[in-house]
Amino acid sequence: MSEFKKTDRTTITRLAKRASYNKETIYAILDEALYCTLAFVLNGGPVQIPTGFCRIGDTLYIHGSVGSTYMRELAEKKLPVCLCVTCLDGLVLARSAFHHSINYRSVVMFSKPERITDEAELYRVLEVFTNKMQPGRWDDVRKPTTAEWKATMVLAFPIEEISAKIRTGPPVDDEEDYTLDVWAGTVPLVIERKTPVTDPRLKEGVSIPSYL
Amino acid sequence: MSEFKKTDRTTITRLAKRASYNKETIYAILDEALYCTLAFVLNGGPVQIPTGFCRIGDTLYIHGSVGSTYMRELAEKKLPVCLCVTCLDGLVLARSAFHHSINYRSVVMFSKPERITDEAELYRVLEVFTNKMQPGRWDDVRKPTTAEWKATMVLAFPIEEISAKIRTGPPVDDEEDYTLDVWAGTVPLVIERKTPVTDPRLKEGVSIPSYL
Repeated sequence: MSEFKKTDRTTITRLAKRASYNKETIYAILDEALYCTLAFVLNGGPVQIPTGFCRIGDTLYIHGSVGSTYMRELAEKKLPVCLCVTCLDGLVLARSAFHHSINYRSVVMFSKPERITDEAELYRVLEVFTNKMQPGRWDDVRKPTTAEWKATMVLAFPIEEISAKIRTGPPVDDEEDYTLDVWAGTVPLVIERKTPVTDPRLKEGVSIPSYL
Repeated sequence: MSEFKKTDRTTITRLAKRASYNKETIYAILDEALYCTLAFVLNGGPVQIPTGFCRIGDTLYIHGSVGSTYMRELAEKKLPVCLCVTCLDGLVLARSAFHHSINYRSVVMFSKPERITDEAELYRVLEVFTNKMQPGRWDDVRKPTTAEWKATMVLAFPIEEISAKIRTGPPVDDEEDYTLDVWAGTVPLVIERKTPVTDPRLKEGVSIPSYL
C-alpha cells in the first residue's frame, strides 16, 4: 500500500491519529464523493465553489463552461488550489455536549490546474465523469458534438500533495461520564438514491434502464 | 422577504437564473446543512477545511479547540474567509452527456471572524450547535464544565455578503434530442438517518431517547 509524502501543508497536527496518507484510502473517498469544493485566491482573498469531479489514475479532473470566469482564471493563471471532499458517515452522540462529534471521511488536496486539450483525454474524462454520477450511463446517452466539446473546459490536477482525515466508531467520553444515565451512540448517515423521477417530456415507450 | 445586497463577489454571472439572494432561502440551506467548508489564505495560498457550524439570527458560528492552529490564526488575524455549504438534491440524467447535471442548493459567503468571549453567547451557541446536529439532544447531555468552556473556541461570522445557487427540476435537453430513445429524468438524493447504533459501553438500563 503506497503512501503520499507528507508536506507542511498536508501534515495533520490536530487529532493526528485521524490522519491518513494512504493512497487506496484517499482514492476510495475521492471516488465515492459526488462533488468537491475548490478554493483559490482571487484579488488577495479566498474564494471557493462546489463542483463535480472525477479521478483517473493520479489525476483529478473538473469541468465547466469555457465561458466560466473562474475556469478561465484557473486555466490561464494556473492558480494554486486547495480542494476538499467530505463524506458524512454519522452523528456521534456522546454523554457530554463536549464530546459530540461527527463520523466522516474528508480529503484535502493542494494542486495546480493544467487545461486538457487532447481530444482522447477529454473524451475519456467525460465518460468517467458521467459514469461516476451514474454507472452505466455513458453507453446510453447522446455523445458530445464538436460544438459541445469546444464549449467544455476540462482542468486536470495532479494528485500529489494530499491527506485524509477520518473519524469512525462510537463516542469517546470522559471516563467518569460512562456511569451517566444518558444514551450514547452513533446515528449513521447515508446518501440514498430514491426512486427515479421520469422527465415529463420523456418520449412514449422509453423504459427505465436496468442500472437505475 | 428581504434580500441580501449583491456585491462584486456574490453576484452570480454564470447561469444567473439559478442565483438567489433571498434571506429565507439562504437561511433554510444553512440550517439544513450539517457542515460547511471554510477557505482562507495562508502564506499566500488557499487552504480549506470542513467543519460543523450553526446559525443564530444573522450570525454564523463555528467552534474548535483553542489548541487548533487554524482557529487561532483565524481569531488572531481576523482572516477573511469564504465559506461554502452544499445540499445535494439529485442527479439530473439528460438524453445527452452534455446536459447531465446535479440538482443542488449551495451557499457561498464572505466574512471575517470575531472570537466570542461572552459566556452567555458561548453557551447559547453550543446549545444551538448540539440541537442542530440532533434536535432535543442538549437537554439530555452533561453540560460543559468550566475547563471544557475554556478549551473551546467559538468564532462568529456576520452574515452580510452571501448568495445561493440552486438547480431544481428535470433535465433540459436540446430540442432535437427529445425524440431520442434515451430515458431521462432525475434520481433524488437524500441524506438518511439510519437506525442508531448504541455505544457498546452504554450503562445498562438506559433506553434510547424518543427524539431518535
